[in-house]
Amino acid sequence: SSSLSKSINIFLGKVLVFPMEGSHWLNMEILIKALHAQGHSVTVVRANKSWYVKEESSHYRSITVNVTAGVDEQAAKIILQRLINAERGQSSVLNFLRLQMETFSMNTEVPKILVELATNMIQNQVLINTLKDSQYDLVLTDPCWGTGVLMAHYLQLPLVFNVRGVNGRDGHQSIAPSPTSYIPVTGSGFTDKMTYTDRVKNMLIHFFAQVHYNFFVRPIYQALCEKYFQTGVDFDELIQGADLWLMRVDFVFEFPRPTMPNVIYVGGFHCKPAKPLPQDLEDFIQSSGVHGVIIMSLGTLIKELPSEITAEIASAFAQMPQKVIWRHIGDRPVTLSNNTLLIDWMPQNDLLGHPKTRLFVSHGGTNGLQEAIYHGVPVVGLPVFFDQYDNLLRLQVRGGAKIVTLAKVDKDNNFLMALKEVLNEPHHKENMQKLSKLHRDQPMNTLDLATFWIEFVMRHKGAAHLRTESYRMPWYSYHSLDVMALLLAVVLLILFMTVALIRCLCFKMFFRQKFKHE
Amino acid sequence: SSSLSKSINIFLGKVLVFPMEGSHWLNMEILIKALHAQGHSVTVVRANKSWYVKEESSHYRSITVNVTAGVDEQAAKIILQRLINAERGQSSVLNFLRLQMETFSMNTEVPKILVELATNMIQNQVLINTLKDSQYDLVLTDPCWGTGVLMAHYLQLPLVFNVRGVNGRDGHQSIAPSPTSYIPVTGSGFTDKMTYTDRVKNMLIHFFAQVHYNFFVRPIYQALCEKYFQTGVDFDELIQGADLWLMRVDFVFEFPRPTMPNVIYVGGFHCKPAKPLPQDLEDFIQSSGVHGVIIMSLGTLIKELPSEITAEIASAFAQMPQKVIWRHIGDRPVTLSNNTLLIDWMPQNDLLGHPKTRLFVSHGGTNGLQEAIYHGVPVVGLPVFFDQYDNLLRLQVRGGAKIVTLAKVDKDNNFLMALKEVLNEPHHKENMQKLSKLHRDQPMNTLDLATFWIEFVMRHKGAAHLRTESYRMPWYSYHSLDVMALLLAVVLLILFMTVALIRCLCFKMFFRQKFKHE
Repeated sequence: SSSLSKSINIFLGKVLVFPMEGSHWLNMEILIKALHAQGHSVTVVRANKSWYVKEESSHYRSITVNVTAGVDEQAAKIILQRLINAERGQSSVLNFLRLQMETFSMNTEVPKILVELATNMIQNQVLINTLKDSQYDLVLTDPCWGTGVLMAHYLQLPLVFNVRGVNGRDGHQSIAPSPTSYIPVTGSGFTDKMTYTDRVKNMLIHFFAQVHYNFFVRPIYQALCEKYFQTGVDFDELIQGADLWLMRVDFVFEFPRPTMPNVIYVGGFHCKPAKPLPQDLEDFIQSSGVHGVIIMSLGTLIKELPSEITAEIASAFAQMPQKVIWRHIGDRPVTLSNNTLLIDWMPQNDLLGHPKTRLFVSHGGTNGLQEAIYHGVPVVGLPVFFDQYDNLLRLQVRGGAKIVTLAKVDKDNNFLMALKEVLNEPHHKENMQKLSKLHRDQPMNTLDLATFWIEFVMRHKGAAHLRTESYRMPWYSYHSLDVMALLLAVVLLILFMTVALIRCLCFKMFFRQKFKHE
Repeated sequence: SSSLSKSINIFLGKVLVFPMEGSHWLNMEILIKALHAQGHSVTVVRANKSWYVKEESSHYRSITVNVTAGVDEQAAKIILQRLINAERGQSSVLNFLRLQMETFSMNTEVPKILVELATNMIQNQVLINTLKDSQYDLVLTDPCWGTGVLMAHYLQLPLVFNVRGVNGRDGHQSIAPSPTSYIPVTGSGFTDKMTYTDRVKNMLIHFFAQVHYNFFVRPIYQALCEKYFQTGVDFDELIQGADLWLMRVDFVFEFPRPTMPNVIYVGGFHCKPAKPLPQDLEDFIQSSGVHGVIIMSLGTLIKELPSEITAEIASAFAQMPQKVIWRHIGDRPVTLSNNTLLIDWMPQNDLLGHPKTRLFVSHGGTNGLQEAIYHGVPVVGLPVFFDQYDNLLRLQVRGGAKIVTLAKVDKDNNFLMALKEVLNEPHHKENMQKLSKLHRDQPMNTLDLATFWIEFVMRHKGAAHLRTESYRMPWYSYHSLDVMALLLAVVLLILFMTVALIRCLCFKMFFRQKFKHE
């Protein structure tokens, strides 16, 4: 990484990685490659049912652990279909409830798999001995999935997060003060400027998310803690006790909010200048002339949408003067025009960085939006689930994106109108280019920054000096409710005694006067 | 600064500086020199009664403004004497009250001078026109003194702080969430681990500091806002609205706590490797042999202590096998031994970086302690006022310093015992060297970082994307009290209705049964 760190200590370490699947893995792999390039040795723990994490790689060794169920492509497809069905329900209240149920079941199914993975590791004495003998310097994990958090504690290793969210919430919510008055809860769809009604809703959503997490998700992880760890080990404290949080956002993207000393902002560390495209793609793009191209991808998880939606999207594209490159797997939409090229994989960063790219149609994953910011390309958003709506909202309020929800995409030409609006009103592009300028103007490259801090934790065997101990306080002490109760009691006592004294004096005076008069 | 920023934009800007006097100026001048070295032009506003800020410099132009009173050397000497007298009073309660009164009067005297300075500028139409015509890119100021804050608003310029404290409190208190449950208030003498009693005291100190500030200090500044600015301009909001806070601490020194995106930690940016010493000092140090030297300085403000204290200090030094270099102005202490060299100015950083330096006797200013950390030298602290006790406490709890208060320095050989303890117990030195290692292991040089961010604000005409708008919310909305009141009312209403319903049903059942029985 930086020349400064090298001059201090040339330290070649051993990193144990517990990744998350899907797009999170694509992001983690870039960090692994950077660590490998620095000379560190990396071991990745993967499930036998792993979807994206390959067993063989030139950048890491892998350890495969057997689990009975996995979060694989098939599982993702089923969940997606259920979510889309839920979102496209007729009644908006039913729709909302169905979405909650689906998210709910997904949020409890996945932790069970993750705890099974950790249990199978802990019960495999040969594996545990190998891990202990290997003397790793730290665990690097995405705390969206809890296995790495559990295993870092079991192996007593420093812990670094490559993080966007924890338990369905923005990662900050787990460690930094997050007043619901101006910090919108993930899934609320609010910005940092809320009306009174918004603030009431935001607090209610926060409350129900807390209840859901504490009664249905946390117990799954806590059960393992109680079975295999010392008494008193709390799963939440394990998360809060991480040495460093490499947060995959920056404040060009995220609303400004309180943060903590051990949060390092590395948003967009995967972005880089565009490389030349394959000749056939380049030829197709050049054929677009002055109009340029639109590119569309719904990310790693979503490869296929219901056919009535794809037909609507294809017919909207057909009416545009631009050429379109669409990452689409599945049946060819019937309304597809010959200005649209379907491909099953795209070099997204290279396409976004192409000078002829005019617009990015995206599902709103953090990776893709940070790339859009980096290259200054305006966005039409088709959010599906997780934080995608909230991510797109951050660009929309900054005037660089327009959101069309899946539930409304095939109504009243919504999608076509959004394409036209973002392309024809130049402020969308100008705003994205302003964000791009801010994002690129940083004191150091964010991938170098991430590597520096991982190495820092290895050099110093943790980063305890950056971590508050406040998490260990009971909530009523943290918020000083116990102190305020005492002070209130004292004030009330003084008030009461003053009133009593006055009454007593008045009574005496009255009595004496009465006595005099009589 | 960094090569990255240069490649983005070579921007030569104009910086208008409102410095604070004394040691704060020594620190600010280093930043000014760095900006000047980058090619920016710097203008410094100084009072005609300025104590440290020279009219002529090769690094900056200056503008001199007349004021009737100044914070000069004489004023500082009087305040110091009053504070020492107060601290050395007989009764500890009286002592405490006197200290409060002295601090109180100092805290209201100084803002009056600062507001006079701003008023004289605003009323000088020629000066204001010159300032406007000069088209500065930003105001750089130390918000410990409010003139720069007022003038940045008047001139409508971006605002950057080089900051340690604001209105007698740690700078964080003005912008970052600071729960009194684990954030000790400046002057409380607590650490980040407090008992219940400590937490009660901490909240009370916080409360009285708030009352004092809001009723006695803020009105002085607010009066100018109301006279010269648009209605609705609030002095506190001007402070909270600064684009960037270059905070003169780091988390090797400061307890970990919540922070904000626009706080950049530049603690110790003035530290650098030691340069060779003048020959006479070097000879004196070499004559110390294996025992090495003790160096003592009480900083910029305090040049002379009462003679009974200096006599005690001198006689303690006389009993040590080390040689001593003591920055001391005033009468030669009668008990001085020939192992002690009195000098009236010392190259402090070069002395602290000398391999034979064993111990630093310091008043606990932030500058000196960051230098002690940088060079890994243990400290005996003689705090006088401001944040000095709190600063020293941070090193004491990390095992690198020992505090002796002025009130107790001449009793029971306290000072001598502290010297011996810190010198003879090696963990003091080991701990300071551990802190030094952590402090030096940063992704980039902090002076470069400070320069980068000042240039960032000039390039982008502010840094609004890093600043929350939460400060504009009323306090009850910020803390969601209005939302909680509604939710509580709803819960109570539901409870009340449920109870009413149950009572009604019971009554009916009872009545029907009674009716049946009859």
